[in-house]
Amino acid sequence: MLKFNLIEEARERIKDIVVKTPLSLAPNLSLLSEAKIYLKKDNLQLTGAFKLRGAFNKIASLSEADRKRGITAASAGNHAQGVAFSANHFNIPATIIMPEATPLTKVNGVKDYGSEVILKGSNYDEAYAYAVKYAKENNLAFIHPFADNEIIAGQGTIGLEILEDIEDIDIVIVPVGGGGLISGISSAIKHKNPKVKIIGVTAKGAPAMKESFIAKKPIDSLNVRTIADGIAVRDTSEFTLKYILESVDDIIEVCDEEIANAILFLLEKQKLVVEGAGAVGVATILHNKIDVKDKKVAILLSGGNIDVTMLSIIIEKGLLKSFRKMKLQVTLIDKPGALTELTEILRDCGANIVQIGYDRTSTSLAYGDANVTIAVETKGESHQDEVRTKLKAYKLKFKEIN
Amino acid sequence: MLKFNLIEEARERIKDIVVKTPLSLAPNLSLLSEAKIYLKKDNLQLTGAFKLRGAFNKIASLSEADRKRGITAASAGNHAQGVAFSANHFNIPATIIMPEATPLTKVNGVKDYGSEVILKGSNYDEAYAYAVKYAKENNLAFIHPFADNEIIAGQGTIGLEILEDIEDIDIVIVPVGGGGLISGISSAIKHKNPKVKIIGVTAKGAPAMKESFIAKKPIDSLNVRTIADGIAVRDTSEFTLKYILESVDDIIEVCDEEIANAILFLLEKQKLVVEGAGAVGVATILHNKIDVKDKKVAILLSGGNIDVTMLSIIIEKGLLKSFRKMKLQVTLIDKPGALTELTEILRDCGANIVQIGYDRTSTSLAYGDANVTIAVETKGESHQDEVRTKLKAYKLKFKEIN
Repeated sequence: MLKFNLIEEARERIKDIVVKTPLSLAPNLSLLSEAKIYLKKDNLQLTGAFKLRGAFNKIASLSEADRKRGITAASAGNHAQGVAFSANHFNIPATIIMPEATPLTKVNGVKDYGSEVILKGSNYDEAYAYAVKYAKENNLAFIHPFADNEIIAGQGTIGLEILEDIEDIDIVIVPVGGGGLISGISSAIKHKNPKVKIIGVTAKGAPAMKESFIAKKPIDSLNVRTIADGIAVRDTSEFTLKYILESVDDIIEVCDEEIANAILFLLEKQKLVVEGAGAVGVATILHNKIDVKDKKVAILLSGGNIDVTMLSIIIEKGLLKSFRKMKLQVTLIDKPGALTELTEILRDCGANIVQIGYDRTSTSLAYGDANVTIAVETKGESHQDEVRTKLKAYKLKFKEIN
Repeated sequence: MLKFNLIEEARERIKDIVVKTPLSLAPNLSLLSEAKIYLKKDNLQLTGAFKLRGAFNKIASLSEADRKRGITAASAGNHAQGVAFSANHFNIPATIIMPEATPLTKVNGVKDYGSEVILKGSNYDEAYAYAVKYAKENNLAFIHPFADNEIIAGQGTIGLEILEDIEDIDIVIVPVGGGGLISGISSAIKHKNPKVKIIGVTAKGAPAMKESFIAKKPIDSLNVRTIADGIAVRDTSEFTLKYILESVDDIIEVCDEEIANAILFLLEKQKLVVEGAGAVGVATILHNKIDVKDKKVAILLSGGNIDVTMLSIIIEKGLLKSFRKMKLQVTLIDKPGALTELTEILRDCGANIVQIGYDRTSTSLAYGDANVTIAVETKGESHQDEVRTKLKAYKLKFKEIN
């Protein structure tokens, strides 16, 4: 485990700047799982993610000479913001290497903190490789996103904060990507109380650390694909695996569908914007992956930096899944009044039409018929049944195209 | 002003159940306005809105006889949830009258707390009229949403909490609908420190209280229309206007466009889901409606119960406004390869196509031409310029259809 005094020192270094985020009871989740579920809201951290903790601690602990020469890091996401914020705070020149396809909002976020940005590489691994080379060539301190004791100690401050608020916590659930976050939190908590269970969660599309945990040796993935981009790490770090094998009780995984459900749940029920990586813990509860009955459980919401375009897609798909929208293809006779009949039926059901298309030339159609594809807003499962029943009563041929 | 001891008593009654919500610095807004802007996050309150405070206090202060007979209320929104939650807590039979068109999720929310629901009336005013009659006929206590001292005292606890956290606050910005919320907060704060400025915010589409404040007498609106449904109140309450004239320093208004911008800002920058009524305060800062320079300002985010469908619309429109999406109509020659050329240009610009339509039969088109309507994701204003320049370089005729 990481030495406890490193985490205590980190706490001292970050305490005036980094926010102690709220840890609050989530009544809905608690009811659902017959447990006391508390959410640790690091999505409300400055820069929108826990990564600030490690970056700030690392940069605060650099020597005066290191600070003068400047620092560099590679990241398309939360680590970049954390490093840029901290470099700005200490007035240290910083250069962040970001993949070429990084969205402008993220690039500007880093620039707004005064860091230089170099766009390099078609993915994170290429940007990372360039950053290591760039650091060497320019004699700069390279701020690794997780394989570094000061970074891990910074993330570990979350563990201290959880115990400070709820001393008798039973289980802490933590997202796992590179493994720095869970290494820090488990080291902090197990030092104080070895009986607390630490459970890691990986995305099914990025299974390296879960497989390595089971095999007890580093196993890399061939490729990664998940909406939880914050934990989409391809290769296992030996550095963090060692800590994880020493102090983590279990690692379980959730799939993208489950993660999307958790994001929508947090948005609607907790009024919180949480990114995919940050929502994996809640996904385990929503989908009964862990037995938490009668336990006090803290779930870390590690960050909130999700693209609003992705959020919009998750909402739209979620409306279909939760029976608040249905898509129908209705076959009508291609004549005046046919569409009126259909829209009247939907009006009488109180189903608002939000999309419509008309096709009379598909070869699958009989001559004189037309297909109307239509999306309507509905009020739940029984409301959708009502729409179906009414369409059948009017002898309309239709199929659902969700 | 409301008697201060009523607010202190309310605080005592609610303190073990109702959450003391966080009041935290918003660095982005502070930078933008050269002030210290703090957000009071009552969207993170149980039931998702401040309304619980007043409802809980009112119901907690009912006599034993009143409790036995039961209570009723009219609401399609946050008041309904607050009353149902509190009735459930005290084990009091409750019947909530909701307009017939109330979304099923909101109806179920109330039912989940064990309240009866009667769907009645085509709008709030009709539901309200029925509820008053229903209360009389069945000898039930009617829980008014704002024109009630115990309700106002409950909302006033927000004022106490703000002063507890930041004693030397200069300005407090509060949404105004019926006026109960601002009456309570201003009474609490002015009692403790009359120098604090209390500023109310109404929606342009629901101006009754703003006009009444200027005229110093109740003025009703003919109709109301705003995305801030929580403050879409048609008629001015004399009950709250009296308190407001005594203790509020100014009332300003914001339009739906400004409110939508604030909702998106809070979603992206603060990772918070805030409903229209809850976002009006932030809208005043984003659109420079108040001079707050060098002041310490608390803005109340009054609730987070926004329909995700509305959220999705706000995101989609926001992407267009913030240059992250553009819609184009490009005129091509109607032959194989024409579309390939267009998609190649967009690929080379790194602009992802997310929607496409093809039309060759509009009369405005020359024979042999086709119009392609296309939506692409872009990375900002300069990226959109790049797309325009490239389309022009290839001599393509296009227009923007945002």
